[in-house]
Amino acid sequence: MDTKTNPEYVAGNGLIHRRHLLGLGLAGIGSMAAGSVFAADAGMLSIPAWSKTPGNGPSEYGAPSPFAADVKRLAGGPSATAPGSGVSRTPLHLLRGTITPNSLHFERHHSGVPAIDPAQHRFVIHGLVRQALSFSYEDLLAYPMVSQIYFLECSGNSGANTVATAGDTNAAAIHGLLSCAEWTGVRLSTLLAEAGVTDAAAWITATGADAASMGRSIPLSKALDDVMIALYQNGEPIRPEQGYPMRLFVPGWEGNVSVKWLTQIKVADAPAHFRDETSKYTDLLPDGKSLQFTYPMGVKSVITSPSGQMKLLRQGIHEITGVAWTGHGAIRRVEISADGGRTWADAHIEAGQQHLALARFRLPWQWSGAPAILQSRATDSSNNVQPGRDSWMAAYNPANRYHYNAIQSWSVSAQGDVKNVYA
Amino acid sequence: MDTKTNPEYVAGNGLIHRRHLLGLGLAGIGSMAAGSVFAADAGMLSIPAWSKTPGNGPSEYGAPSPFAADVKRLAGGPSATAPGSGVSRTPLHLLRGTITPNSLHFERHHSGVPAIDPAQHRFVIHGLVRQALSFSYEDLLAYPMVSQIYFLECSGNSGANTVATAGDTNAAAIHGLLSCAEWTGVRLSTLLAEAGVTDAAAWITATGADAASMGRSIPLSKALDDVMIALYQNGEPIRPEQGYPMRLFVPGWEGNVSVKWLTQIKVADAPAHFRDETSKYTDLLPDGKSLQFTYPMGVKSVITSPSGQMKLLRQGIHEITGVAWTGHGAIRRVEISADGGRTWADAHIEAGQQHLALARFRLPWQWSGAPAILQSRATDSSNNVQPGRDSWMAAYNPANRYHYNAIQSWSVSAQGDVKNVYA
Repeated sequence: MDTKTNPEYVAGNGLIHRRHLLGLGLAGIGSMAAGSVFAADAGMLSIPAWSKTPGNGPSEYGAPSPFAADVKRLAGGPSATAPGSGVSRTPLHLLRGTITPNSLHFERHHSGVPAIDPAQHRFVIHGLVRQALSFSYEDLLAYPMVSQIYFLECSGNSGANTVATAGDTNAAAIHGLLSCAEWTGVRLSTLLAEAGVTDAAAWITATGADAASMGRSIPLSKALDDVMIALYQNGEPIRPEQGYPMRLFVPGWEGNVSVKWLTQIKVADAPAHFRDETSKYTDLLPDGKSLQFTYPMGVKSVITSPSGQMKLLRQGIHEITGVAWTGHGAIRRVEISADGGRTWADAHIEAGQQHLALARFRLPWQWSGAPAILQSRATDSSNNVQPGRDSWMAAYNPANRYHYNAIQSWSVSAQGDVKNVYA
Repeated sequence: MDTKTNPEYVAGNGLIHRRHLLGLGLAGIGSMAAGSVFAADAGMLSIPAWSKTPGNGPSEYGAPSPFAADVKRLAGGPSATAPGSGVSRTPLHLLRGTITPNSLHFERHHSGVPAIDPAQHRFVIHGLVRQALSFSYEDLLAYPMVSQIYFLECSGNSGANTVATAGDTNAAAIHGLLSCAEWTGVRLSTLLAEAGVTDAAAWITATGADAASMGRSIPLSKALDDVMIALYQNGEPIRPEQGYPMRLFVPGWEGNVSVKWLTQIKVADAPAHFRDETSKYTDLLPDGKSLQFTYPMGVKSVITSPSGQMKLLRQGIHEITGVAWTGHGAIRRVEISADGGRTWADAHIEAGQQHLALARFRLPWQWSGAPAILQSRATDSSNNVQPGRDSWMAAYNPANRYHYNAIQSWSVSAQGDVKNVYA
């Protein structure tokens, strides 16, 4: 088949088989050409100023181009009632790939970022252990470590889409409390083995050194599984806003339990019922009761391009791309619809996806200029399928803002404007 | 077996079976304890100043802790004869994991970093094609993309160890022209398909927009395989010193061919024999002849901790860790010796290693306080084995500085001082 003239449609409203993902030149299929034919006499190879003089030399710690200054976190300032509290959101719609640069990893603080001198910081393990232990930062650096790429998502991520009317905002504003990095640190199980957990132990409770004393309880079984004391983020020491000099990292679970600026772990026989696991981070149900300790993040995906507040400037082929993740293993499948869920086609998932890490998906789409509704639906290795918004909303109280993982719908108008909608 | 008292030795001079990697508390095996026993009345849980007041709120683009300011590139300034030329090296010995943060990715410039306005930049494909094409930055953003984690290594990396006397320097100074990132961009094959390569084509030649007009020739077969026009690095737009707004990325091959600030690709029937593939980046042989176009980087590894100019402050268990890579596939095996190559033990390679990306390896080692020589030896999926220094040196002219991939030896003195040695 000549793919230049006959793309193989796999679902309604222009979705094209993913085998054409890389083979399709954009010029062929009725699109306005992306690359334009080059005439040697057009003067386009005239030598720009920056090619005529030597540029700056090397530097010790690099920074982005000034021309990329819009690629930044969407930061909400502290409030008067909670100084230092706030969030910043990863600009998902401006990123491509799966790794989040450290400077763009989302933040959520309950009392700001403490400026910790690692030489003065102590981390203590105590409670139901044979011997309580105290660790300096230097102490921990001497322990065996592990490295793994993991996503981290705030429990309240995407909560904006639980309100009655869909806000006209972008992917960062809705879904940007989500990031992915390579985390390196000491397995908590290594340290607990040294402290000697006693038979009565069933939970650990972890507390941070921030002024909010953020604390969370975690079942011992998870603590002994894949939890680490993270010391490095994408290779370098973790950033202050991520818990420098050390944080708990609890793979696949709501971000709040990965306690930052970790200062103590108490081994206990029951959860501590901290403020942040009673007044917050519980899931309100339709009958007024709440679910507590609902840790793993649900299977989820979001199309990051095209996405809210973008504009399609031409008809023809566009790449639909986004990220998918699950707290229950790996992403097995991402389907895409361009007709509001009537028909679906499998997206291509980039190879090399790690367990409990972001997956990048892509599918070519031929936009005819007609209105469209773009959606993605993820399925994970535990056979969980991302729910539609209606079924998610029916399972919770309308006031609940946590663990929203419903399908995101973006509408595309005939003018190419992309908007957040409920569909 | 009680691993607390009887570690399972697997090779001479204290190497311990990797199955003990995470299970070993450091306190057990005759070491000075890393974590110290905590007495509740010792006052170590006194509340530090940073826990008493709210910290700073969220920010738009984060930065490292001031206490981690030593984690920076080792940057060499431009010379008087070559303004803007120079290098900066990744601080491998201060990083853990496999991803290099963008701010710490190594640099090699031949005429500095051009400050390119992407709106004014053009990339042209011409030569033996059906139609020459010109692309703006915005044009390229519309094409289908791929994302993959790849190492990048300068051909001259580790050349410092080809000189007659081993320099007393650190891992960054010797091996720091090596980094690893997730690169996202448009496959060159996609664009070449649109341009229409003619039957006579056998090579491409790529040229950058820097004042040095850095150019390199690449066989068409590689260009049509995994080469991309990279637009994103660890998710965000590539950094100025990495070629913003676009660079060629040639996986597994010497870094110099991944031409930065890419402005044109000419499809040709022969290589261009650019200055940088004749006067430089050729491998001088013992008989005075040179090898040209020796692109793939050899199988290689380096222990990053302990490494040159570090000091072991106590006897007992230390984690030996480092990185391994190959331009011929994936790393299959890393062996470690603590006795200068007499006996070897298999290191643990962290799961999830990608093809043509860094692998992180680790092995516990019990240092008795006696002198030791630490070495690592990598084997790749194509059965290439990292050579010893003597055999590598015998294969080249003593003046050759390219493609040095011999085994690195670090000596540890009775005082714990770690030094670069030839052994």
